[in-house]
Amino acid sequence: MKKIVNNPEYVVRDMLEGLIAAHPDALKQIPETTVVARKDAPLQNKVGIVSGGGSGHEPAHAGYIGDGMLDAAVCGEMFTSPTPDQVFEGIKAADGGAGVFLVIKNYTGDVMNFDMAAELAEAEGIEVEKVIVNDDVAVEDSSFTTGRRGIAGTIFVHKIAGAKAAAGGSLQEVKNIAEKVTANVRSMGMALTPCTVPAAGKPSFVLEDDEMEIGIGIHGEPGIERKRVTSADEIAEELTNKVLEDIEFNRGDDVALIVNGMGATPEMELYILNKKINEILLDRGLNIHKTFVGNYMTSLEMSGCSVTLLKLDEEMKPLLDAESSAPAFRI
Amino acid sequence: MKKIVNNPEYVVRDMLEGLIAAHPDALKQIPETTVVARKDAPLQNKVGIVSGGGSGHEPAHAGYIGDGMLDAAVCGEMFTSPTPDQVFEGIKAADGGAGVFLVIKNYTGDVMNFDMAAELAEAEGIEVEKVIVNDDVAVEDSSFTTGRRGIAGTIFVHKIAGAKAAAGGSLQEVKNIAEKVTANVRSMGMALTPCTVPAAGKPSFVLEDDEMEIGIGIHGEPGIERKRVTSADEIAEELTNKVLEDIEFNRGDDVALIVNGMGATPEMELYILNKKINEILLDRGLNIHKTFVGNYMTSLEMSGCSVTLLKLDEEMKPLLDAESSAPAFRI
Repeated sequence: MKKIVNNPEYVVRDMLEGLIAAHPDALKQIPETTVVARKDAPLQNKVGIVSGGGSGHEPAHAGYIGDGMLDAAVCGEMFTSPTPDQVFEGIKAADGGAGVFLVIKNYTGDVMNFDMAAELAEAEGIEVEKVIVNDDVAVEDSSFTTGRRGIAGTIFVHKIAGAKAAAGGSLQEVKNIAEKVTANVRSMGMALTPCTVPAAGKPSFVLEDDEMEIGIGIHGEPGIERKRVTSADEIAEELTNKVLEDIEFNRGDDVALIVNGMGATPEMELYILNKKINEILLDRGLNIHKTFVGNYMTSLEMSGCSVTLLKLDEEMKPLLDAESSAPAFRI
Repeated sequence: MKKIVNNPEYVVRDMLEGLIAAHPDALKQIPETTVVARKDAPLQNKVGIVSGGGSGHEPAHAGYIGDGMLDAAVCGEMFTSPTPDQVFEGIKAADGGAGVFLVIKNYTGDVMNFDMAAELAEAEGIEVEKVIVNDDVAVEDSSFTTGRRGIAGTIFVHKIAGAKAAAGGSLQEVKNIAEKVTANVRSMGMALTPCTVPAAGKPSFVLEDDEMEIGIGIHGEPGIERKRVTSADEIAEELTNKVLEDIEFNRGDDVALIVNGMGATPEMELYILNKKINEILLDRGLNIHKTFVGNYMTSLEMSGCSVTLLKLDEEMKPLLDAESSAPAFRI
């Protein structure tokens, strides 16, 4: 294992210190927790938006903290759900009296622990609502999931729910729009190489020198097929078509697109993919409202990509376009 | 070689198409060239800022095109200087009548080809000035360089010279501030793994499973030492101390910092490095004005990092802090 780390047991702790040091005016760590919050949290009378999950997916989720996006992110250990008490700390950090909204990726541990935290918060009089994001069309059920997994589409939920809250939306209004985004966002990924959790010291799976895996999860969970590496155009077609088949897209629909890198994919390759994805979407008569290319939801040093499409309507569009100060998601 | 590409000979062409498709409102490609320019270029009566070089260092340089930064980027083939006629096209694209300023990384081919392009432009009545960035303290002379190499410090030159031009600075004023940045910026890098140019099909060098190379260049040029991989803290110390030794930093000095990933380095590891770098700088009594952590000047899928420090003064600070719309460098 070749990594730039100190004690592998403390990578999350060390990362959080380095993160706060880099953004001292924007972020704070809640003492004795792994919760990162905006420096000025909680914002009075604004719905607080909280997300989180296992670490190793950076910039998800702490990079999405800022005006018009998240108020707090709860950082679990590597690929491990944060505990209910940590999530509860995140809820408290974001609570400005208008309720707190939780954006949860659909993994069994996350769902359970965020739910328990919500109960703890409600017992203390904090109103909590949630959405469970399950955008990954690759597989139904998986190693850590009942139903579909939540992956890069989660970023669109952060952005649009966060913009709604920033615009003064009520907890119920934030929930409604978050559910609408979740209903209209789909993703699918693939990997060329595995990744290694520092404390484990060896890759979570093995791919041969000429092999890729289609439909892989962001923790290296099995996908739908292992096969020989094909061209960028073929990969773009396979992922995009699977996403397009899953919900109804009609000619003239506005869509937002994320071409996401898994961590070790050169930006060049993501743009090469985008060339073909763009052609496919235009051929289908879709209007590409906005394209985001980069590392948004990663798996450490995994090489690979995912494609996310959100079908927009007139309510979602201005919320997606609204300004955000989150370092990892600029409009 | 595992890569998401089509024909390896056409990776730059394909990338540029995907890049323009992702940013249709901000960027344009000059027809029949590998020049990317801001959509509204040339801006009348503003000094045009042009940079470029071999491709494979994305987001450098096309990601730095935008308000307050570059007007055009000239994209060479993989790790290959753009030709004089391509650079000349870039100069013409950026020329709004107030002259064009070239930011050149110090590689023999780049310096020669940008110089020839400047002569072509001057023959057509376009006033051209330049700066050559040589921030890499690792080695004097190298595979492709006489003198020191230009690496991630170049981004600070883009930003500050770009802000000066956006503020109405004359060609001479832009040159003066760019020279000041170059005189005050220093960098040093290291690698854990090599990278593979698609058309070559195999890595440009080999590192053993437990080896890293200190002082490596962004094309895999040899550094100053190969040794066993040490801890993040030791790597941070080695790079930062070498940078700090190279020019005089005094207690109370303001500095700006880039903790740069080489392409395949998880963001987590960059933040772990930043924790220690931050401690070292504070111990030295320096005031960290701003920290940038991420992939700014990469080498395809090389794993590794570089540390860049810029000693700021009261003239440079507001120019660094000025807003920019470049997708890869937000303040």
